Amino acid sequence: MTLPKPEDLIIHSLGECRFPSPLQLGAASGEYHGEFMSDAAKVRFHVELERLEGRPDDLFFERAGPRERLFFDPSKVKAAIVTCGGLCPGINNVIRSVFLSLKYNYGVPEVYGIRYGYRGLNPAYGDGFIRLTHEMVENIHLHGGTFLGSSRGPQPVEVMLDTLADRGIDMLFCVGGDGTQRGADALAQAARRRNLPLAVVGIPKTIDNDIPYVFRSFGYGTAVEKAREVIAGAHAEAKGAPNGIVIVKLMGRNAGFIAAGATTASQEVNFAFIPELPFDLDPPNGFLAHLEKRVLQRGHAVIVVAEGAGQHLFGDLPVERDASGNIKHHDIGTYLRDRIIAHFRERRIEANVKYIDPSYLIRSVPANCDDAQLSDRFARYAVHAAMAGKTDLLIGYWHGLFVHVPMHLVTSQKKHLSPKSSMWLSVLAATGQPVLMVNEPVPETTAS
Amino acid sequence: MTLPKPEDLIIHSLGECRFPSPLQLGAASGEYHGEFMSDAAKVRFHVELERLEGRPDDLFFERAGPRERLFFDPSKVKAAIVTCGGLCPGINNVIRSVFLSLKYNYGVPEVYGIRYGYRGLNPAYGDGFIRLTHEMVENIHLHGGTFLGSSRGPQPVEVMLDTLADRGIDMLFCVGGDGTQRGADALAQAARRRNLPLAVVGIPKTIDNDIPYVFRSFGYGTAVEKAREVIAGAHAEAKGAPNGIVIVKLMGRNAGFIAAGATTASQEVNFAFIPELPFDLDPPNGFLAHLEKRVLQRGHAVIVVAEGAGQHLFGDLPVERDASGNIKHHDIGTYLRDRIIAHFRERRIEANVKYIDPSYLIRSVPANCDDAQLSDRFARYAVHAAMAGKTDLLIGYWHGLFVHVPMHLVTSQKKHLSPKSSMWLSVLAATGQPVLMVNEPVPETTAS
Amino acid sequence: MTLPKPEDLIIHSLGECRFPSPLQLGAASGEYHGEFMSDAAKVRFHVELERLEGRPDDLFFERAGPRERLFFDPSKVKAAIVTCGGLCPGINNVIRSVFLSLKYNYGVPEVYGIRYGYRGLNPAYGDGFIRLTHEMVENIHLHGGTFLGSSRGPQPVEVMLDTLADRGIDMLFCVGGDGTQRGADALAQAARRRNLPLAVVGIPKTIDNDIPYVFRSFGYGTAVEKAREVIAGAHAEAKGAPNGIVIVKLMGRNAGFIAAGATTASQEVNFAFIPELPFDLDPPNGFLAHLEKRVLQRGHAVIVVAEGAGQHLFGDLPVERDASGNIKHHDIGTYLRDRIIAHFRERRIEANVKYIDPSYLIRSVPANCDDAQLSDRFARYAVHAAMAGKTDLLIGYWHGLFVHVPMHLVTSQKKHLSPKSSMWLSVLAATGQPVLMVNEPVPETTAS
Amino acid sequence: MTLPKPEDLIIHSLGECRFPSPLQLGAASGEYHGEFMSDAAKVRFHVELERLEGRPDDLFFERAGPRERLFFDPSKVKAAIVTCGGLCPGINNVIRSVFLSLKYNYGVPEVYGIRYGYRGLNPAYGDGFIRLTHEMVENIHLHGGTFLGSSRGPQPVEVMLDTLADRGIDMLFCVGGDGTQRGADALAQAARRRNLPLAVVGIPKTIDNDIPYVFRSFGYGTAVEKAREVIAGAHAEAKGAPNGIVIVKLMGRNAGFIAAGATTASQEVNFAFIPELPFDLDPPNGFLAHLEKRVLQRGHAVIVVAEGAGQHLFGDLPVERDASGNIKHHDIGTYLRDRIIAHFRERRIEANVKYIDPSYLIRSVPANCDDAQLSDRFARYAVHAAMAGKTDLLIGYWHGLFVHVPMHLVTSQKKHLSPKSSMWLSVLAATGQPVLMVNEPVPETTAS
Repeated sequence: MTLPKPEDLIIHSLGECRFPSPLQLGAASGEYHGEFMSDAAKVRFHVELERLEGRPDDLFFERAGPRERLFFDPSKVKAAIVTCGGLCPGINNVIRSVFLSLKYNYGVPEVYGIRYGYRGLNPAYGDGFIRLTHEMVENIHLHGGTFLGSSRGPQPVEVMLDTLADRGIDMLFCVGGDGTQRGADALAQAARRRNLPLAVVGIPKTIDNDIPYVFRSFGYGTAVEKAREVIAGAHAEAKGAPNGIVIVKLMGRNAGFIAAGATTASQEVNFAFIPELPFDLDPPNGFLAHLEKRVLQRGHAVIVVAEGAGQHLFGDLPVERDASGNIKHHDIGTYLRDRIIAHFRERRIEANVKYIDPSYLIRSVPANCDDAQLSDRFARYAVHAAMAGKTDLLIGYWHGLFVHVPMHLVTSQKKHLSPKSSMWLSVLAATGQPVLMVNEPVPETTAS
Repeated sequence: MTLPKPEDLIIHSLGECRFPSPLQLGAASGEYHGEFMSDAAKVRFHVELERLEGRPDDLFFERAGPRERLFFDPSKVKAAIVTCGGLCPGINNVIRSVFLSLKYNYGVPEVYGIRYGYRGLNPAYGDGFIRLTHEMVENIHLHGGTFLGSSRGPQPVEVMLDTLADRGIDMLFCVGGDGTQRGADALAQAARRRNLPLAVVGIPKTIDNDIPYVFRSFGYGTAVEKAREVIAGAHAEAKGAPNGIVIVKLMGRNAGFIAAGATTASQEVNFAFIPELPFDLDPPNGFLAHLEKRVLQRGHAVIVVAEGAGQHLFGDLPVERDASGNIKHHDIGTYLRDRIIAHFRERRIEANVKYIDPSYLIRSVPANCDDAQLSDRFARYAVHAAMAGKTDLLIGYWHGLFVHVPMHLVTSQKKHLSPKSSMWLSVLAATGQPVLMVNEPVPETTAS
Repeated sequence: MTLPKPEDLIIHSLGECRFPSPLQLGAASGEYHGEFMSDAAKVRFHVELERLEGRPDDLFFERAGPRERLFFDPSKVKAAIVTCGGLCPGINNVIRSVFLSLKYNYGVPEVYGIRYGYRGLNPAYGDGFIRLTHEMVENIHLHGGTFLGSSRGPQPVEVMLDTLADRGIDMLFCVGGDGTQRGADALAQAARRRNLPLAVVGIPKTIDNDIPYVFRSFGYGTAVEKAREVIAGAHAEAKGAPNGIVIVKLMGRNAGFIAAGATTASQEVNFAFIPELPFDLDPPNGFLAHLEKRVLQRGHAVIVVAEGAGQHLFGDLPVERDASGNIKHHDIGTYLRDRIIAHFRERRIEANVKYIDPSYLIRSVPANCDDAQLSDRFARYAVHAAMAGKTDLLIGYWHGLFVHVPMHLVTSQKKHLSPKSSMWLSVLAATGQPVLMVNEPVPETTAS
Repeated sequence: MTLPKPEDLIIHSLGECRFPSPLQLGAASGEYHGEFMSDAAKVRFHVELERLEGRPDDLFFERAGPRERLFFDPSKVKAAIVTCGGLCPGINNVIRSVFLSLKYNYGVPEVYGIRYGYRGLNPAYGDGFIRLTHEMVENIHLHGGTFLGSSRGPQPVEVMLDTLADRGIDMLFCVGGDGTQRGADALAQAARRRNLPLAVVGIPKTIDNDIPYVFRSFGYGTAVEKAREVIAGAHAEAKGAPNGIVIVKLMGRNAGFIAAGATTASQEVNFAFIPELPFDLDPPNGFLAHLEKRVLQRGHAVIVVAEGAGQHLFGDLPVERDASGNIKHHDIGTYLRDRIIAHFRERRIEANVKYIDPSYLIRSVPANCDDAQLSDRFARYAVHAAMAGKTDLLIGYWHGLFVHVPMHLVTSQKKHLSPKSSMWLSVLAATGQPVLMVNEPVPETTAS
């Protein structure tokens, strides 16, 4: 990951903060009170050091939190929230907490939900706005999905900005992944060009947990929980048949966090494949020989593969992209299944091969407690930032602390699972799989 | 369903019961004691009457239960249990309870588990027997799958019988569906021909709940529970996108009980298709027009389809069979998906169509409480029957009572979900779907 | 249980059915259609026979179902629903399905929910009516509790009837236990005296599963599921400490179905106590000696006790009653705990005794799939009955079929768990506990 | 929290590391390999800064991880693991991963489990050692509790050390809270005095999440998950009765993390009380008036109270301690319940007050995925430390990284939930409760 320079970390501001915050916090209050956060409060990024003498310069991000003075007069604010991209556990919690925080903490009179992602800002679709009420959002956090609906792909920035301006929207909360945040970035920049005092605040949503400066994104943990259930079923299937082999395909376009997390949590996986690590199938050191050995020794095997893994195996096949611009990966799951079947058939070894693709099932469930808490906080910190007139930023998170991350830092790269990380070492220990299943020379990293 | 004659209900017996039961029950004990069950105790099959005057002859089945006198000397019994066919929640509970009942209630010294279904009885495979111990089975009921492993398909009857005879097995418990029970029937008959005093007792296993004389089979309810979870996810996906349409394929080769149960329980399904009911896709009264109307009115739709539904739509395409002799159904799920996509594309109506096939996920989980209780009881009643020297029978169940069903009654037909049943009426009410989506004339029943 | 005579089974009718049903069912429709149910359709009660020669007279109940002709003009009906007594999984499903069936199947224009049980019919409390809408009830089945609120105890019948008459209510659905149904019975009788054409239909609600003629009540299965979770925790606690003994108190005032069901499902209980079976604590054959033996042999023990068990141990202590008239049982859970602690202390044997009372936790959860289906059907059958002008009846259920049970049959007695039943035999087998832990002579049954 | 000086962070070592690690990691391996960790690798403690100019000196902890050279010859190691104190989700995962890591990663031939906590090291109890095998531990992570059993309280250090020395134990893994780690510290020091090369490594176990230098302890998240379920039930009960008030008592002796986490996750709590914040009950600003207002406005209320909250309300009542030396708190739950009942009775306002104490239920369940991963890693890092001859340390954790914390740092203080933290601000926002419910002057912090 390329590291930013200190000057890259400056947060855009809409202007002077002239209004006192209605929040009942004392800047210098006693031991038992929360307090306002100063713009001078920072959070360090680096905590790892190889050696003390080589200590790198610290990188400090602006800390998120309620500001004592606001750019907007809360009693006159019109706010809107939009959710984009695929489902992710916790989106409804975010919608709800943004609404509640605006309405009850700040006294904002009008909060709108935009239907079906950015296209709700394009009048050509006619999806429109919903004026949110307490009754509408009261119980939505108990359900999966997104109350507002979602869609993929960009919309014309000027059209969207026209809609927002016509409606008199002061702040827009954009819940989505890197594509969504690119759109948010563009909106914020366009507003700046028009001198429109629009606060655009991004709330990171990535079930794959692959947005940089967000060490843990909401929904990810719930997805791992569901993925573990799937693996438990796969394990039962594998053990239930002679030489049972079950392949589970999990989400993870560019990063293997779900596959790795579910593997470590389940402890029932024998081989895990992630986008970050290349692997071969053929001899001498490819996967199939290792699988055969395992099956002959133990009578069954469970394989987990992230959807973005092993794309190098498809060679020069052309790639397609979905409406969000994401690469449509070649189907590594069915490819592995077919290669495994062919291998055992050729070797005249019985094998009962099954394939499980839980697909949407791990992303459409309600948030578990960690994700419920995370999404609640992302939402509330986004509101604090917007009320203070900050814009073109994303709420980041590490070490239990929330920060302001300039939007451009998260739209140009993905976070990856390092093969040197504690998480991947846990996977190796839990599976007992070889550290690398490649035939030399090792190709370059396959993650895109 | 063809009804048997009273003489068809006689249960085969291995001979005179000369040993007293070690169970501490009094035949004429007081109010607080359980008691032995006489062979004269019966359970009625019919409870529905259209009109009192037209009352049909009652049909009475022998009631299951512990007998006061046993054919086998418990202290010398060698018993074996085999599990066949696909996974089903509760198999491990059955294995465990058969073992515990034999060992602790009857004092049987040797209980064997046969590996990987009937092929474990065929020395050609070399899978062998496991001598079961308390430690082995203690916690297996907490996990999905089958501790013994399973396989599909028949094995040569005489070979299996040789194996059982060589091992000195006195009683064999066969856990499986109709194919398995056909095998059990053949084994019992072959043993009779050899004058081998082998008790063969079938324990019905069918996640589809389609074995006759078993009103509720273990595992079915758990599968419905998991299917409901899948539907909840599908519902979130459907509502999360403009004109979201999600198709969920559920188990149910010949009977729609899982699809119907999950639909009624979830209350979030708009169209449910089962093998028992034909349907058309095209105008004037086919499904696609109804779906289009629903989507245009409400913006989303959830469709549940049993895997055996709509096979008539494939016309004269040849059918294949799996190792168990089950028809390999044409894939109605992807067919529906493709037809829906084509329909909306042709009509130039936006539709976001998703397809979910949870496949093994709904059958590889541990038993819920109802299934845990059911499987426990099926197991214990099977043991009672075998100890009393009964053979060539299946444990049946209705009205909270367990009965002895001659094996031949369950191997020739399937149980179906009647479109006139309370269950199907509930589906119609919950979905609001048309009673029939066919273009006249109505074809004959499609269930096989 | 005292059996009724055939003349006791006649269902009260408000009068001639002059209106055609709007339901799209054909009385003589084809194979694929549901159909209307005739009043002549009956369901047998008895299925068990000791011996064929002694066959008792059959008892036939009127079968529930949609009638072809209705007493009420659906387009003019005002209906109301009230929920009384303690929470039970599935109440919200009942409310929702009554509403949906009335509104969408029958086209009833006005459906009201009554707040907080019968007191909502007493203007003195001012709780009032809610006019139900689709939006209100759409998702309530996904949550535990009762959307309408509940309360205990009776209200003046004439006052309630005045309220209903003033509002022009044509039919009242009473969801509750035996106390509630006594109130419903009184209301129906009072309406008859006034010649008010009010249909009063009871929907049985009893988490304890103790209403006669209802073989399985909604909510019971879900409660067992939660109780099993509690027992799993208790088991972990018991094994986690030297001589760990954990007592779990479960619901079950008069009937031990929850305790027995959870015990059989869990297979981790060593002693289960229910109201139907007396037991002693002291030597020679009391519980404490058996417990001591178990703990010394195995190092831990799990005990499940229904709240109504062992009341005879409190001797002549006076009993109190709650607002519903239910006996407030002496606290057998803490009593057992204290006696166990004292016993081991006295015997100078280490014991780590813990007590778990999950109380409300097993009744406030959403309905599982079986209960969701059951409550849906109870609701819809109640609606069918009311539309046909039937009154003063409860919806009964056995053998998968729903029936009309005259209210007076269920208000005078409770259903009990027979110690001779398959269920209790399963408990004895699963726990290994002695058949009876009493010192002679055996006292009379303790169930009230 | 008092911060240590750099010299306080030095980790004790048993001596020179003469044996190469059998782990297949390269110190300077390529991009796709994990690698050994040098003793020079450090992890920063501070990430928050108020202002850049006031930047405090960094505090660096030794980073945990596999060392390239080991103190012990793995092929000759005898290791032991002991679990102490109350149950906590994940203990079995720790036991299992310690065993697997020792056996399969390092090739350690003998691993022992010590029965029932430290008393298993005291021959007076005769509980003894279990030699662990793969079969024993294979599935234990799927179940709650501790496979080894546990107990509270200290044992004589020299006696324990004698046992370990007699058995030739080289390394002891101590899973427990601060009391346990005090014992581990004493053992390590005593071994040092005897020149016994015994590695004592602590693995922090605290369901309350209150051990310093462990930002997130395993089991805590699972407990919050269960607590949220309890609150959902409480919410249903509260809304189910007129003026329903439900009090839920949750774990949390000294720290309110469980109460705060469950409150934020559930979003259904109206008042939360934690040990860190004092509160009054009486006017003018005490809790009861705020509760009354809430109930009159909204008709129900849910209250969550940590067991250690509000102890100041008991004034000078003497305190007792349990075998672990933990203060036995006065029962704030029933006290609140009684005061609430009295308040509403006195004010002649109807209130239906219920009290739920889930007690053991939230700690005896299996670990969720996060806790499964955490406990796996704590276990494996503890093994790495011990193999390298490090002793008298605890595995610490923050920012996704694991560190070595000198034992003495964690035995003298507890971690607390700061009222200024993001977590507590989320509680205030979610509940809407007043920032402080005290009558001046504010008492000192009540946390002990």
